Amino acid sequence: MDVISVIRTKRDRGELSGEQIDWVIDAYTRGVVADEQMSALAMAILLNGMNRGEIARWTAAMIASGERMDFSSLSRPTADKHSTGGVGDKITLPLAPLVAACGAAVPQLSGRGLGHTGGTLDKLEAIPGWRALLSNEEMLSVLDGVGSVICAAGDGLAPADKKLYALRDVTGTVEAIPLIASSIMSKKIAEGTGSLVLDVKVGTGAFMKTLEDARELASTMVGLGTDHGVRTVALLTDMSTPLGLTAGNALEVRESVEVLAGGGPSDVVELTLALAREMLDAAGLKDVDPAKALADGSAMDVWRRMISAQGGDPDATLPVARETHVVTAPSSGVLTRLDAYDVGVAAWRLGAGRARKEDVVQAGAGVELHAKPGAVVSAGQPLMTLHTDTPERFEYALQAVEGSFDIAPEGTAFSATPIVLDRIA
Amino acid sequence: MDVISVIRTKRDRGELSGEQIDWVIDAYTRGVVADEQMSALAMAILLNGMNRGEIARWTAAMIASGERMDFSSLSRPTADKHSTGGVGDKITLPLAPLVAACGAAVPQLSGRGLGHTGGTLDKLEAIPGWRALLSNEEMLSVLDGVGSVICAAGDGLAPADKKLYALRDVTGTVEAIPLIASSIMSKKIAEGTGSLVLDVKVGTGAFMKTLEDARELASTMVGLGTDHGVRTVALLTDMSTPLGLTAGNALEVRESVEVLAGGGPSDVVELTLALAREMLDAAGLKDVDPAKALADGSAMDVWRRMISAQGGDPDATLPVARETHVVTAPSSGVLTRLDAYDVGVAAWRLGAGRARKEDVVQAGAGVELHAKPGAVVSAGQPLMTLHTDTPERFEYALQAVEGSFDIAPEGTAFSATPIVLDRIA
Repeated sequence: MDVISVIRTKRDRGELSGEQIDWVIDAYTRGVVADEQMSALAMAILLNGMNRGEIARWTAAMIASGERMDFSSLSRPTADKHSTGGVGDKITLPLAPLVAACGAAVPQLSGRGLGHTGGTLDKLEAIPGWRALLSNEEMLSVLDGVGSVICAAGDGLAPADKKLYALRDVTGTVEAIPLIASSIMSKKIAEGTGSLVLDVKVGTGAFMKTLEDARELASTMVGLGTDHGVRTVALLTDMSTPLGLTAGNALEVRESVEVLAGGGPSDVVELTLALAREMLDAAGLKDVDPAKALADGSAMDVWRRMISAQGGDPDATLPVARETHVVTAPSSGVLTRLDAYDVGVAAWRLGAGRARKEDVVQAGAGVELHAKPGAVVSAGQPLMTLHTDTPERFEYALQAVEGSFDIAPEGTAFSATPIVLDRIA
Repeated sequence: MDVISVIRTKRDRGELSGEQIDWVIDAYTRGVVADEQMSALAMAILLNGMNRGEIARWTAAMIASGERMDFSSLSRPTADKHSTGGVGDKITLPLAPLVAACGAAVPQLSGRGLGHTGGTLDKLEAIPGWRALLSNEEMLSVLDGVGSVICAAGDGLAPADKKLYALRDVTGTVEAIPLIASSIMSKKIAEGTGSLVLDVKVGTGAFMKTLEDARELASTMVGLGTDHGVRTVALLTDMSTPLGLTAGNALEVRESVEVLAGGGPSDVVELTLALAREMLDAAGLKDVDPAKALADGSAMDVWRRMISAQGGDPDATLPVARETHVVTAPSSGVLTRLDAYDVGVAAWRLGAGRARKEDVVQAGAGVELHAKPGAVVSAGQPLMTLHTDTPERFEYALQAVEGSFDIAPEGTAFSATPIVLDRIA
């Protein structure tokens, strides 16, 4: 087996054999296939695609590159969720304790943000004392004791994916559905969850800009999960405008706590409950109503215990940015568009995200929204507040939000996009 | 400027801007753009192409990455030739001294073989004492004194190409017309020749398998040369069967000396004269007849002086392989096909070529042909003789030649393919 013949097969629109895939993933993990060879193959895959059989084998080879976790010792059924990433997407924070409060075990291995979408771990690290890094034993102990845990994935899960993901990030080969699907699913399957709900975002603020692409990604992932014995379902959800009223780390923690307290923005509550119902259903807990667990405080209770178990203080005051700048409505009328991508870029430029892996994020930075699409606004009314510790960034962030919204004359008809666009099982 | 946006532009079928091309070539040469990023870009170029404007700028940027030579101090007009490589293609050996004997200066910077096609420098190194590596001053001195020089290209010419060529070789991105054309022409233009004749091979033994691809490559290169003030013309020539009766290093030197002595296989003589006429024409020496210089011994005289000037002994006995094996005709009839690629692979497996850059070639190894397409053969008659110092290689080489020829019943009509298929200027 040699790598050039593997690259040529895909370059010339051929189908990779199972032996070629097993060999190339293993050889890349061991450093026998070099980065420059794998990136050429990744570009050929991006441009020429892989069929379902190739994607399944590719995913299996990445799982086989590392260890697999085992939750069979837990007394509860496991349910996990993965979001493809969006602006203001803090759903994991209220969702994990909520589903745990309803009787499932929720092992939520999460990542950090890179680019315009935030990372769940970055958000939770805004809570003083909270630790993302747990050993496998600590993780199992929190999961068993509290019911949910949100932490960094260990180095042992799908090391081939870890290496390939870092390579794709610097070689313009991220946006390939076969590679995105196999990356997500290899980690989730290796993690050992019994059921999985996928939140596939669609719109300007998401990787997938069109419903068609999102559907293809979702059905590819559902197929992969099902083939590996994981009950998998996907919701396609709207990411044309930010979720909720905040994008940033501490800002999103605050909003998540509001949801757990029974309040919070209606879109965040709606999506949290929709995903919770899918997770409970997939875990065989169909008859439990998650809305009750929000209303009676039991979800908040799990949240507090989960944060404490990882060294965080649920009662601590959250960090606040040193400076704010208000953007006002230039005219009166109906806010018909508020672009998720532009708001995400603004939050990122204010310091909420990172440009390179080694960058440090600002806990208090981000964007707070005062109006969402459909709202009637008056000229001069605050539309959003920018938060940062480094006010020299305001100008650069303002450039991002400049064209991010449209205000139409008062009385213009506006039809809201539903949060959940489709369901694929 | 960042490399991911450059990669994405080409990945998404866009046109690279002049600034993007200048930046990426310079940054790659300086090591700011990494190999894994350049290989992803090379694969995107291979699959999505570049237009004429992009190829011209890419070539100019590679030229600008290094030094340019200057032959204006010479009293004669310069004429150079480049072949895209074929099996048994020893034409440079008789051609350079022949054209020099007719009054042009021929600076022939050549390469080594990799894969199934041989390298001019490997062939000449079969001559005891001959040195491929000359300083720029030595090269100019041989060129000025003798009229022709065949040597390795210095490290200073188009270093971006040197780096990119090595990368393409290991990443399955060799077969891209924009990259092949810019690689060849950047070196030839930087070398400073006034005129250039391209021998673009077509057929099983060539990079370009079809006349259509060869035409595209040829017209791209002619355009690039003309734009840079180099009088450039291309001949498309047949490479469906080996050139002449030998493929190997010492074997091809011997055949070249036969041509210089006024003999040799007719196809080698025909192509040598056709290319010589084009070179003389491009150099403004239209009225000189190269056939005369072969007949009167003046070309042989330049050859002997050229070999001596580079430390070689033109009278030395050439190395002979330790073992030979004869392949005979399995039936009587007309030899209708003798495949260039298969014979090239056999010569390579016998030790005439290298699999890796660091491999050492055998001077005596190769294939000697006893019949060419069109010949009438009898069952049991020798078709070819395999030469090697390492007889354990015979079996592997025999596998390559097993299906390399067809013998049709006697009396079957056979129409020979002409050597020169087309001319592009």
